[in-house]
Amino acid sequence: MRTQVVIVGGGPSGLLLGQLLHLKGIETVILERKTRDYVLGRIRAGILETGLVDMMREAGVSKRMDTECFIHHGTCISYDGEMFDINFQKLIGENVIVYGQTEVTRDLYDARDTAGCRTVFEVEDVEIRDADTDNPFVTFNVDGSARRIDCDFVAGCDGFHGVSRKTIPDTVLKEYEKVYPFGWLGVLSETPPVHEELIYANSERGFALCSMRNDSLSRYYVQCGLNDDLQEWSDDRFWDELKRRVPEAIADSLVTGPSIEKSIAPLRSFVCEPMRWGRLFLCGDAAHIVPPTGAKGLNTAASDVHYLNEGLVQYYRDGDTHGIDTYSEKALARIWKAERFSWATTNMLHRFPDQSEFDLKMQRAEIESLHYNETAQRWFAQNYVGLPY
Amino acid sequence: MRTQVVIVGGGPSGLLLGQLLHLKGIETVILERKTRDYVLGRIRAGILETGLVDMMREAGVSKRMDTECFIHHGTCISYDGEMFDINFQKLIGENVIVYGQTEVTRDLYDARDTAGCRTVFEVEDVEIRDADTDNPFVTFNVDGSARRIDCDFVAGCDGFHGVSRKTIPDTVLKEYEKVYPFGWLGVLSETPPVHEELIYANSERGFALCSMRNDSLSRYYVQCGLNDDLQEWSDDRFWDELKRRVPEAIADSLVTGPSIEKSIAPLRSFVCEPMRWGRLFLCGDAAHIVPPTGAKGLNTAASDVHYLNEGLVQYYRDGDTHGIDTYSEKALARIWKAERFSWATTNMLHRFPDQSEFDLKMQRAEIESLHYNETAQRWFAQNYVGLPY
Repeated sequence: MRTQVVIVGGGPSGLLLGQLLHLKGIETVILERKTRDYVLGRIRAGILETGLVDMMREAGVSKRMDTECFIHHGTCISYDGEMFDINFQKLIGENVIVYGQTEVTRDLYDARDTAGCRTVFEVEDVEIRDADTDNPFVTFNVDGSARRIDCDFVAGCDGFHGVSRKTIPDTVLKEYEKVYPFGWLGVLSETPPVHEELIYANSERGFALCSMRNDSLSRYYVQCGLNDDLQEWSDDRFWDELKRRVPEAIADSLVTGPSIEKSIAPLRSFVCEPMRWGRLFLCGDAAHIVPPTGAKGLNTAASDVHYLNEGLVQYYRDGDTHGIDTYSEKALARIWKAERFSWATTNMLHRFPDQSEFDLKMQRAEIESLHYNETAQRWFAQNYVGLPY
Repeated sequence: MRTQVVIVGGGPSGLLLGQLLHLKGIETVILERKTRDYVLGRIRAGILETGLVDMMREAGVSKRMDTECFIHHGTCISYDGEMFDINFQKLIGENVIVYGQTEVTRDLYDARDTAGCRTVFEVEDVEIRDADTDNPFVTFNVDGSARRIDCDFVAGCDGFHGVSRKTIPDTVLKEYEKVYPFGWLGVLSETPPVHEELIYANSERGFALCSMRNDSLSRYYVQCGLNDDLQEWSDDRFWDELKRRVPEAIADSLVTGPSIEKSIAPLRSFVCEPMRWGRLFLCGDAAHIVPPTGAKGLNTAASDVHYLNEGLVQYYRDGDTHGIDTYSEKALARIWKAERFSWATTNMLHRFPDQSEFDLKMQRAEIESLHYNETAQRWFAQNYVGLPY
């Protein structure tokens, strides 16, 4: 079998890349380790930057998003019982939207079906071969039989634990990492969100986040220990803890209900350089991870897709390799900015085990800058809605 | 002896407070542990914020400053051999000026002489007594004889090691501190400054600063070990090290010469709360220390003088205690902002012994934000020229 671009990984970044390339007449095959239902069942981010929203429109998959999404003009931050709003719309004339990653993925699968593009599910033992030559190919097993696809390029969209990054020799790849000394305990519940905007809460008991997917589906988080046992976190304990970390008026109006999903996620900052090795390009979580504070995960993946799509289109349309040759550099330049924002926002909002009283005062001074200074707010807003590509 | 306000400490903050109060007909006595020549011989900061410049004018001591100072429209930051300018004038329409703390102090002493206000030098064993009553007094020895001054208020302008802060009971005072794991080795030399603006340099060999006092007097610093021995730092070694930490073009045009002063200073962030105890008010270094990155030391002292002068004038003129009652709160609110800026700027520009490669990337991302984003530059500029009182 032969195709132009093999996309390893059928999550939102692989699907979005596939759809954008398809619209330019570039053929792709997507290889996904899991089933479609499994992929659609993963609970992930829900905040889309302008850049990603624009790409969804460019990809022709924005119809449901444009109807069902919620526009957020700003976000709230609370500390010591106080709460204030950072209004992106007023500050810089931009917004973000709330539309679950699950929905993005579903829309992209539907579009791929309509386009008749190939996706192979439940592939095993994927290997990316000869990526440093002009004739790369990908081998894998499906339904017990061995397959091979020859291609021009491979897009590694298979996440942090995927095979793509591991394909690049250690001598080429440099990795940067920070593991935070806490996790996020997340609960999804079929209850109305407590507030129209997200609330990022710094409290002496640790961080909390009040988020949502739509007007009857809420997503809440509390900072927890890295080794906390999910069994110890009953729904009651979770709601009680959440209420103690947000301003009283918010706690009082919180509607609780049974959790329909509950999980603990560690927080990590990770980047590998370069993001290209020969004809293999890494995209999204395969190359970098941000802690979820600031909602950059899906959006950084989209940023990579933007640059890679641009480079591949330039190659196939004009025979010009400039775009793919500069992919790693361009993608990384923007990724490091998002990493900085996610790291700084994580530092500003969480309690760390080794924080001194002076450190806490600095954290508070950072939050008060945001509370009272419009320039600091504008800088936050620019980063939150997403810096320009 | 009796006066209205005893000012403990004859450095710039005590002198400025004394002069401002004098102009409102409020009598002060300044007690200084050292000689006038000693005080004038101390080499300190040289960057004055707008707020301090305005107060010098208000105090009627700006004549020489206005003639001899250098206006700096911005400052330079270098990293990895690159250098960029943050132009305060263009960004926010404000400047800072270069005028040595030594000159500020000299002008204030001259004005105090002219005004005929009392300053007692070489006082020993200063004790601030009954500050928590309506009848405070200060005892001390001078020329071998014991003295006592009764007063309405005591202004503690006697620096970090002074007696004022120690007068406040431990049960009342809360201290916040961070000691940085390095020092600054500073050299003063009678050479023309290498650049018209300050250069703050982040280099892989550590921080460096190219500063000046006037067009024939330069002040340079390199980050050094906390336990470095001054004897090991010959002038040649200093100049060689400095050149290796700044962009090549700067190193090439650096005029070197014999050092006329050379010293190592540790870097510390420190704040005590509250800054008032009864009728004793702490001002400047007596209550807080900033690391010198960002040049906030003298300016934070001036900020305290502003609020204390305002409060005392209100008290004597209107019999209104509101200003002195809110002194600590108002002064601290602004101090914490300056502490945040000095801490963040120190973190951005120095090498730390425990920095991971990820941490270095975050540091670089912070610097690149400043290099390429105008909003980040504006936020830096606002802090550098001084947030409004």
